[in-house]
Amino acid sequence: MSNSIILVVNAGSSSLKFSVFRVNGAENLPLVIRGQMDGIGTRPYLKVRDANETMLVESDLTTSEAATVGDAITLVGAWLRERLQHESLFAVGHRVVHGGTQFSHPVLVDREVLMALEQLIPLAPLHQPHNLAAIRAIGERQPQIPQVACFDTAFHRTHPQIADLYALPWKYYESGVRHYGFHGLSYEYIALILPKMAPEIANGRVIVAHLGSGASLCALRAGKSIDSTMGFSPLDGVPMGTRPGALDPGVLLYLVNQCGLSGGELETLLYKESGLLGLSGISNDMRILLESQESRAQLAVEYFVHYTVKQIGALAAVLGGVDGIVFTAGIGEHSPVIRARILQACAWLGVSVDTAANERSDSCISSTDSKVSAWVIPTNEELMIARHTLALINSRKGGHVE
Amino acid sequence: MSNSIILVVNAGSSSLKFSVFRVNGAENLPLVIRGQMDGIGTRPYLKVRDANETMLVESDLTTSEAATVGDAITLVGAWLRERLQHESLFAVGHRVVHGGTQFSHPVLVDREVLMALEQLIPLAPLHQPHNLAAIRAIGERQPQIPQVACFDTAFHRTHPQIADLYALPWKYYESGVRHYGFHGLSYEYIALILPKMAPEIANGRVIVAHLGSGASLCALRAGKSIDSTMGFSPLDGVPMGTRPGALDPGVLLYLVNQCGLSGGELETLLYKESGLLGLSGISNDMRILLESQESRAQLAVEYFVHYTVKQIGALAAVLGGVDGIVFTAGIGEHSPVIRARILQACAWLGVSVDTAANERSDSCISSTDSKVSAWVIPTNEELMIARHTLALINSRKGGHVE
Repeated sequence: MSNSIILVVNAGSSSLKFSVFRVNGAENLPLVIRGQMDGIGTRPYLKVRDANETMLVESDLTTSEAATVGDAITLVGAWLRERLQHESLFAVGHRVVHGGTQFSHPVLVDREVLMALEQLIPLAPLHQPHNLAAIRAIGERQPQIPQVACFDTAFHRTHPQIADLYALPWKYYESGVRHYGFHGLSYEYIALILPKMAPEIANGRVIVAHLGSGASLCALRAGKSIDSTMGFSPLDGVPMGTRPGALDPGVLLYLVNQCGLSGGELETLLYKESGLLGLSGISNDMRILLESQESRAQLAVEYFVHYTVKQIGALAAVLGGVDGIVFTAGIGEHSPVIRARILQACAWLGVSVDTAANERSDSCISSTDSKVSAWVIPTNEELMIARHTLALINSRKGGHVE
Repeated sequence: MSNSIILVVNAGSSSLKFSVFRVNGAENLPLVIRGQMDGIGTRPYLKVRDANETMLVESDLTTSEAATVGDAITLVGAWLRERLQHESLFAVGHRVVHGGTQFSHPVLVDREVLMALEQLIPLAPLHQPHNLAAIRAIGERQPQIPQVACFDTAFHRTHPQIADLYALPWKYYESGVRHYGFHGLSYEYIALILPKMAPEIANGRVIVAHLGSGASLCALRAGKSIDSTMGFSPLDGVPMGTRPGALDPGVLLYLVNQCGLSGGELETLLYKESGLLGLSGISNDMRILLESQESRAQLAVEYFVHYTVKQIGALAAVLGGVDGIVFTAGIGEHSPVIRARILQACAWLGVSVDTAANERSDSCISSTDSKVSAWVIPTNEELMIARHTLALINSRKGGHVE
């Protein structure tokens, strides 16, 4: 398996993120390269960096060079083959947003699996088609390379049934209207390294706050997800860059029945125009809002903090108390001021912040006498996918040999 | 003011609830009679009881006798005049579901107010028109009698702005998409008598759980509402008899865009078919579910308890901790088993139940060493309306005299 690499792909509607990991062993998967093509179909732009963050490529492409995700994969594939000509591609791992109720673990993709994943498109119409398009495009170009789908929902399949239900007629539950939860690969990664990073809470009651432009929180009991703030869709829970978080169902009824919004308009409103952007009228980017002197920018930040704190209270109730709070993802890893404001409002739970440690973004940011500890742990969803991909292929190869 | 009475009216789509209070003084308003006409327009049925619960009337009416709320008011008015011929009607107080942002206190209804309240119909299309129809019907029949509108939303107008907002584009906030909260007359009554019933927590952080076939919780700080689980509509928060409580906005998007539900179908689903009824498939009545051996009935009860506990956690976070929990309304006042299950799951907050006191539905149902006290306090929205009505009319009469 020497000189073998795993490619990790995360395909969106107009972007293709990719990472390459070298396979040195089951737990030794160093990053080699990571890159991103944005503006596919409009203004394609490719950036690639090596593991030391050195920029290797930064270039505009013509629209016709990268009109589709397939074109993007052809381009990126050619570049990678050139760059990594002494390496052999072991497998491709994909981030796939939705595994429905069927896929509670990563899966090797074959025709049957792909068909099952296509059935789930109505559950995630904005994301699933693009994830699957990337799988198909690679399958067409390199049919001999095994591809593994890793799901954002899978880690949450340990939810007890009560956390999986909405109070709707039962037929909706049976037809798949369930509390799936997302960011599962991030939470799984955190749960995996928690015994090493924070052994004193790893077996306890932990709330992980994945706060990025998409944001959610997960309640872990002994490393298993028992609840999360995103539910059926990635809209629910805490406010996000452009998504509202929790919203009274009566608001949607009003928007449909009184304001006459169509389903499409509603989708645009909820996915693209709400959240921090909608509240502030300025930006979906927390960094910009934190620097702004505008009152609505400050209100949007306050709103984000307030509803994150409120969701921490709700998840603490589900856990029956909390031993530790972990921050991860963009805002969680890089914004001491947001972490401080959230944790100060959690003083009632027994959290006491170590201000200097928080400013430095140390791993542990609570004071030594804090009843509830607080942590900053960078997430790594791509590595999680690479690990799953390697483990799954190896286990199947093992099976073939015997 | 001797021999003077106040009539309190709560008009629904096909029902008219009414109570008569005798005016003995500002704080002395004994109940004289209370009654209810159901099935208006279909199978009208009138029941009236005196203050000792003795049945005074229990009779079927023909559909033509009570085809409209106006007919019902004519009938009930005639019966009351006959029964209470030595009393004079001082004023009528109405429960009006929505006061919008404008009405943060009860108001004497005149033409202008009525027009303003009609403007709010889009915010509460299922309730507001019936409340206003009753006001108009009485105004036509007895134009000289003052009528006072008391709002379910008014008590919550003390919410800080952060609790009033949704993370939507600002224009929606400005056009009235706000977190109104309901059951305000119930919470106001509880806040009013808390200093007498539970003086040790009245100035503290209190969560009131109004658990009936409609259910919500309110966070009180020093007797003022600072947050509540119902928001823009009475659909949000905890699951109810036929309403779902909190629901991922993505579920509604899915129901519209993938299942093709119309706005009308969505409304019926959310107001009539969800909640305990939808989950259990058996009943919207907690008493029936508690007696049932069916697994889905038991699951519906568990769901109700679980999500009430979760909302208690969320409101505790908003309050920064909690000093007392108060149960009221049908389930809250009359179901020791539900209270016990909720409070046991709140042990992490420092609640310790006095099992015997809870079984007896004593006022205080927490043990003496409980860090957070727990209470059962019967609500009385009708009395709250009668008090408001008397106070408002008296204050204006005082104004006229001077």
